[in-house]
Amino acid sequence: MTRTSANSPIEFFFEFASPYAYLAAQRIDDLAARHGREVLWKPLLLGAVFKETGGQPLTHVPLKGDYTLRDVPRCAREHGIPVKMPDPFPFAAIAACRAFYWLEREDPAKARALAKALYAKAFGEGGDISSAPRVVEVAEGLGIDGEKLKAGLQDPAIKEKLREVVATSVERKIFGAPFFFVDGEPFWGNDRLETIERWLESGGW
Amino acid sequence: MTRTSANSPIEFFFEFASPYAYLAAQRIDDLAARHGREVLWKPLLLGAVFKETGGQPLTHVPLKGDYTLRDVPRCAREHGIPVKMPDPFPFAAIAACRAFYWLEREDPAKARALAKALYAKAFGEGGDISSAPRVVEVAEGLGIDGEKLKAGLQDPAIKEKLREVVATSVERKIFGAPFFFVDGEPFWGNDRLETIERWLESGGW
Repeated sequence: MTRTSANSPIEFFFEFASPYAYLAAQRIDDLAARHGREVLWKPLLLGAVFKETGGQPLTHVPLKGDYTLRDVPRCAREHGIPVKMPDPFPFAAIAACRAFYWLEREDPAKARALAKALYAKAFGEGGDISSAPRVVEVAEGLGIDGEKLKAGLQDPAIKEKLREVVATSVERKIFGAPFFFVDGEPFWGNDRLETIERWLESGGW
Repeated sequence: MTRTSANSPIEFFFEFASPYAYLAAQRIDDLAARHGREVLWKPLLLGAVFKETGGQPLTHVPLKGDYTLRDVPRCAREHGIPVKMPDPFPFAAIAACRAFYWLEREDPAKARALAKALYAKAFGEGGDISSAPRVVEVAEGLGIDGEKLKAGLQDPAIKEKLREVVATSVERKIFGAPFFFVDGEPFWGNDRLETIERWLESGGW
């Protein structure tokens, strides 16, 4: 397995309403940094992906849903990550995604900071990030101009950007979240973080 | 997390037609032995479970199926496990399951040896274990009486035993394979073997 280029960024596709993506979000930056890598954060709407692929949220699958609600806190405890299921759950993360891409246009670092703050609100505190007003509140807590952001959420270019991310995700055969590409190699699931770490250490196999 | 009893066996529920269960089967005995544990091997028919739970085979899910066919050999390479997809695939493992439970009644160790030989034939060599004659061939290779086994596959008590295993699996909320219970704690997936190892080392968390 050859690298497409040394130290190219890890692509991290995530869904704001996914507890496993939340867990991965708490660890992926440090993991990448240990191997001299950047991470490209790319929120997507898994619901829109599922429309194309026929998938469905984990928690809607009989038995698997119950297991997930036991497994998520267990995974969190192992890594000392706080977790509390958001209310409402599941929820549509359209506003959260649009806010991310609106901010990213100006400042990718700030967009990532917002993503982390939104996750902290939703899965760290069990809060609500399902609507534009709730997303704007979190953004304002980071010193972002709420009025500008509110307008940005309605910007046709931002709506189109999110549609593009979803379309590209389906083209790249992303069917769930978190989903990673490491030098083009696809990895699905929070439970692949250890595999990714070994992959980076060894150069792949 | 308290143990229900020291050194109680790990329960290993598997489906003969599951590539991830095949991968787990190559490692679970050694893993358990490192922690002074036995493993109870319990083949089930995931198709029968799916009828109750609405689940479906991984390889039937759009995109996820393609990913699986890439991920399985990648997981195998990491651990030096030979893997070749069986032909036919997917297949109904009724004969394989019945043969296991027929043998187990007399000699659990022999039943486990048969399970390993069947997996080696199916996923090690890419062979066919989908019918009674193919299962009997593999059993004869282990010195098992083929005529007796053939009769055993039609034994009503054995058919009932398999139905019971499936019913119990659904009651215990098993929705996929491999599925493990470690002191009552459920773990789903080949990618949870490392978690199980850490769980056994630490006594749980």
